[in-house]
Amino acid sequence: MSEKTRKPLNTLQRAINKPVIVSLKGDLEYRGKMSNVDAYMNVILTDAEEYAAGSLSANFGKVVIRGNNIIFIKIQPDIRVI
Amino acid sequence: MSEKTRKPLNTLQRAINKPVIVSLKGDLEYRGKMSNVDAYMNVILTDAEEYAAGSLSANFGKVVIRGNNIIFIKIQPDIRVI
Amino acid sequence: MSEKTRKPLNTLQRAINKPVIVSLKGDLEYRGKMSNVDAYMNVILTDAEEYAAGSLSANFGKVVIRGNNIIFIKIQPDIRVI
Amino acid sequence: MSEKTRKPLNTLQRAINKPVIVSLKGDLEYRGKMSNVDAYMNVILTDAEEYAAGSLSANFGKVVIRGNNIIFIKIQPDIRVI
Amino acid sequence: MSEKTRKPLNTLQRAINKPVIVSLKGDLEYRGKMSNVDAYMNVILTDAEEYAAGSLSANFGKVVIRGNNIIFIKIQPDIRVI
Amino acid sequence: MSEKTRKPLNTLQRAINKPVIVSLKGDLEYRGKMSNVDAYMNVILTDAEEYAAGSLSANFGKVVIRGNNIIFIKIQPDIRVI
Amino acid sequence: MSEKTRKPLNTLQRAINKPVIVSLKGDLEYRGKMSNVDAYMNVILTDAEEYAAGSLSANFGKVVIRGNNIIFIKIQPDIRVI
Repeated sequence: MSEKTRKPLNTLQRAINKPVIVSLKGDLEYRGKMSNVDAYMNVILTDAEEYAAGSLSANFGKVVIRGNNIIFIKIQPDIRVI
Repeated sequence: MSEKTRKPLNTLQRAINKPVIVSLKGDLEYRGKMSNVDAYMNVILTDAEEYAAGSLSANFGKVVIRGNNIIFIKIQPDIRVI
Repeated sequence: MSEKTRKPLNTLQRAINKPVIVSLKGDLEYRGKMSNVDAYMNVILTDAEEYAAGSLSANFGKVVIRGNNIIFIKIQPDIRVI
Repeated sequence: MSEKTRKPLNTLQRAINKPVIVSLKGDLEYRGKMSNVDAYMNVILTDAEEYAAGSLSANFGKVVIRGNNIIFIKIQPDIRVI
Repeated sequence: MSEKTRKPLNTLQRAINKPVIVSLKGDLEYRGKMSNVDAYMNVILTDAEEYAAGSLSANFGKVVIRGNNIIFIKIQPDIRVI
Repeated sequence: MSEKTRKPLNTLQRAINKPVIVSLKGDLEYRGKMSNVDAYMNVILTDAEEYAAGSLSANFGKVVIRGNNIIFIKIQPDIRVI
Repeated sequence: MSEKTRKPLNTLQRAINKPVIVSLKGDLEYRGKMSNVDAYMNVILTDAEEYAAGSLSANFGKVVIRGNNIIFIKIQPDIRVI
C-alpha cells in the first residue's frame, strides 16, 4: 500500500534493473532491462530489442533513450522474463 | 463547493487511487487506477488497459505515462468500476 | 472598463464556475463549467461534453484538460447555459 | 520614431483595446479587439470572429487565445474598424 | 571584422530599422522593415508583405511575429530596397 | 555492476571516444565516434556516416547533432568497429 | 587529442569563421561561413546558400538561423572551400 503513494519518477527509480517496455512516438517500442533512468525520463536499456510497428527490428547491447519522446514506460513484473 | 475551487493539479492528487481515463495524442486511451501523479502530469496507472482508436489493445500491470503527451485525465466517479 | 485591462490568466480565474468552451488541437472541443484553471491553462471542467469535428462524442463528470494542447478558451456569457 | 524602438511585447501592450488579427497554426485567424495580452502572447479578444481557411466560422463574445500557437498578431490602424 | 564576432541576437539588434526577410515554418515569408526584435526572436515588422508558397498573400502595416515559428531572418543589405 | 547504476547522462559521458549510433526523428541515423556530448544530448561525431531510411546518404568529418531531435544513442561495444 | 574532449557548444564556437553546413528539418540545408553561434545554436551565416531537397534555392548575404529547428551543423575542414 505504501507503494501506491510513490511519485512516478520514484516508481521508475525503483524499477531499475527490472525489465521494462518503453513506448515511443511513431509506433516504436524498446524492451530490455532498465539499467537507469533520470528525472527527464532519459532511460538506459541493456540487452534491448526494438519493435517497429510490432515487429522486432533491432537489437541493442546498451542504448540511451531520450526521455522527451517517451509515451509510457511499462514496468514488468519481476517474475516474467520478456 | 470547496471542491470547486481546487487547482487542477490538486484535484488530480485527490483522485489518487481512483479509476481514471487518460487520453493521449494519437487516439490512445489508458484506463486504470491512478496510483500516483506529479506536477508534470506524469501518471502511474495500475491494472491498466490501453485502447487504440477505441479498441482494447493492451493490458498493463503497472505503467508510467509521461505527462507531456496527455490531452486530458477524466476522473471517474467512485461508484463506477471501469 | 476595468475588466478590459485584466491579464489573460486573471480573466480566466474570474471565469471560474462559469460555462466555457475549450478548443484543442485536432478539432476537439470541450464544453462545461470551468471549476478551476491554473497558470499553465490546465483546466478542470465539470458536467462536460466532448465534441469531435463538431459532433458530441463523449460526456465527462469531471475532466482535467492539460493546458499545452489548448488553442483557446471561450468564456460564455453568464446568461446563456450551454 | 520613438515607436520604432519599442520591444515586441511592449508594442503589443500598447495595442491593448485596438483591433487586431491573430493568426494561428492550421489556417485559423481571430479578429477582434485585443482587451489584453501577456508575456507569453496569451491574448484576450472581445467581440471576436474566427476565420477558418479564410471563411467566417464562429463568433466569440470573449475568448482567451493561448500564446504558444500564435504565428503573428497584426495590429490594425486605429482608423479602420474591422 | 569586428562585425563577424557579434552574437546572433546582437546582430539582429543591429539590424533594427533595416529591411529583413523572416522565414517561417509552412512556407511562409514576411518581408518588411524590422522595427524591433527581442531575445525570443519575436519580431516587429512594419510595411510588411506576406508571401505564401512564394506568392504575395497579404500586406501588414505593423505585425508582431512570434519567434518560436521562425526558421531564419535574412538581413538585407542597406542599399537594396525590398 | 557499478556500471548499472550510472545515470543516463553519465553513461553517455563515459562513452566518449567510443563508436555510437545516433537515431533521429525522420528515419535518420548517424554512426561515428562520439567525441563529446553535453547535458542536452548535443553530440559531436567524428568520421561519421549518415543513413537515411537505412541507406548511406552522407559522410561527415565532424558534425554537431542537436540533442532535441535525438530518439536514442546506441553505445557500441568497444571491440566492434562500425 | 585535446580537441576530442571539447563540449559541443565549445566546438561550435571554435568553428566560427569556418565554412559549415547547417541542416534543418524539412530537408533544408544552409551552407556558408559561420560568423557566429550562441548557446541555443542560433547561427549567423554569411555568403550563404540554401538547398531545398538538394537543389540550390536561394542566396543570402547574411542570415540568422534559429537554433531550435537545426538537426546538425557539419563543420567543414579548413582546406575545403564550399
